[in-house]
Amino acid sequence: MSKVIGIGVGPGDPELITVKAINAIKRCDIVVVPVSKIGRSSIAFDIAKQYIGESNTVLNQLFPMTHDKKELEKNWDENTLEIEKLVKSGKTVGFLTLGDPSFYSTYMYLVPRLQAFGIEIETIPGVTSFSAVAASENIKIGEWEEPVGIVPLKGEGETLIDALDKFNNVVVMKPTHNLELLYNEIKKRELEDNFVLISKCSTDSHTVIKDVEELKDAKIPYLSTMIIKRTGL
Amino acid sequence: MSKVIGIGVGPGDPELITVKAINAIKRCDIVVVPVSKIGRSSIAFDIAKQYIGESNTVLNQLFPMTHDKKELEKNWDENTLEIEKLVKSGKTVGFLTLGDPSFYSTYMYLVPRLQAFGIEIETIPGVTSFSAVAASENIKIGEWEEPVGIVPLKGEGETLIDALDKFNNVVVMKPTHNLELLYNEIKKRELEDNFVLISKCSTDSHTVIKDVEELKDAKIPYLSTMIIKRTGL
Repeated sequence: MSKVIGIGVGPGDPELITVKAINAIKRCDIVVVPVSKIGRSSIAFDIAKQYIGESNTVLNQLFPMTHDKKELEKNWDENTLEIEKLVKSGKTVGFLTLGDPSFYSTYMYLVPRLQAFGIEIETIPGVTSFSAVAASENIKIGEWEEPVGIVPLKGEGETLIDALDKFNNVVVMKPTHNLELLYNEIKKRELEDNFVLISKCSTDSHTVIKDVEELKDAKIPYLSTMIIKRTGL
Repeated sequence: MSKVIGIGVGPGDPELITVKAINAIKRCDIVVVPVSKIGRSSIAFDIAKQYIGESNTVLNQLFPMTHDKKELEKNWDENTLEIEKLVKSGKTVGFLTLGDPSFYSTYMYLVPRLQAFGIEIETIPGVTSFSAVAASENIKIGEWEEPVGIVPLKGEGETLIDALDKFNNVVVMKPTHNLELLYNEIKKRELEDNFVLISKCSTDSHTVIKDVEELKDAKIPYLSTMIIKRTGL
């Protein structure tokens, strides 16, 4: 039966995709690749392309990078409609997601919209960026019975500051939103030896920052993740 | 060169293992399977066994379920020594980890010990139980710019209660530690429609609980994960 399959393809290394994701890609008639600009490359596509066969059609869907909720919702509605037509015509549609669909993915905004059309959904989990960051440094994120805060950096960082006060283990998503704040918090809390920031983890552009002074470099890519562990990495 | 490879094999479904983990298993001379009692079955082994070939030797290592830190450290030291001898004799040793090594894995306690012997370490991330739980229900854990708390339930649940106060999105690890507390918090906060508990996610024994009254059933397995989302699943 035709349906939509949300496919987590992992953090970047094409080997960090699951067998289930590969098999799902092969089952799809259409593979949707979300892009922030038409013509822009997609890491999710780069991971999946070796598993996409001649029987799969690739469909780029535009998801602009904006915080305007009204514009986003209009965009999600339009992309949902396009997918709905394909499914109703009998196609199985895969939707690629970098990392894992349950953490901050665009795909999850389409799910309730597709379900409202009565479309069957399957979701395939993937390896998250933060698990890949920790593995690449052989460090743990959660240990013993300690909680972990996973915090997207936004605004003036109030949520992050609160998490740093409370939790020994914090994952900072979107750290480039305010690198100056991170620099200041790390210095103030004397956590210079207790953090790692990795950009484009597990891809060919994998970059590691452990020197707090390097956070002043404005060229750190958007696709970055930081782990801060108060008790040491 | 001989080394130790920590291998995240994912949450339970043998298809939710990564290509990198499969390739790593094939490269190992010895595959260590941690077990809590000799003779007890291991879900990590059940996932990996189809990828373990004739050239791999399986070594069960005992890791008793105890909270006695002295006993645990003695055990970690002993198991480290056994692995160290194998590596020094030229063997590449894989260490299987259910889920992802960076979240509450036994393997990570061995890493600094092995590194102290100068042993090279590689860690391969895996799909976590909580990502698998969310995917199986087609729900998101983190969305928009909201933080997520990942909280192992322990003691009287102070950390969990605090996380429920602060965070819209909470993953409860080890929920069977105190199901009565979870029942009471869910009722008090009127979150009856906002949680899911899944046991042995993605295995043949995958069980879903969404009715709060079922939390009173004492037979819920240890390998369970709960997601609570204050704004709805």
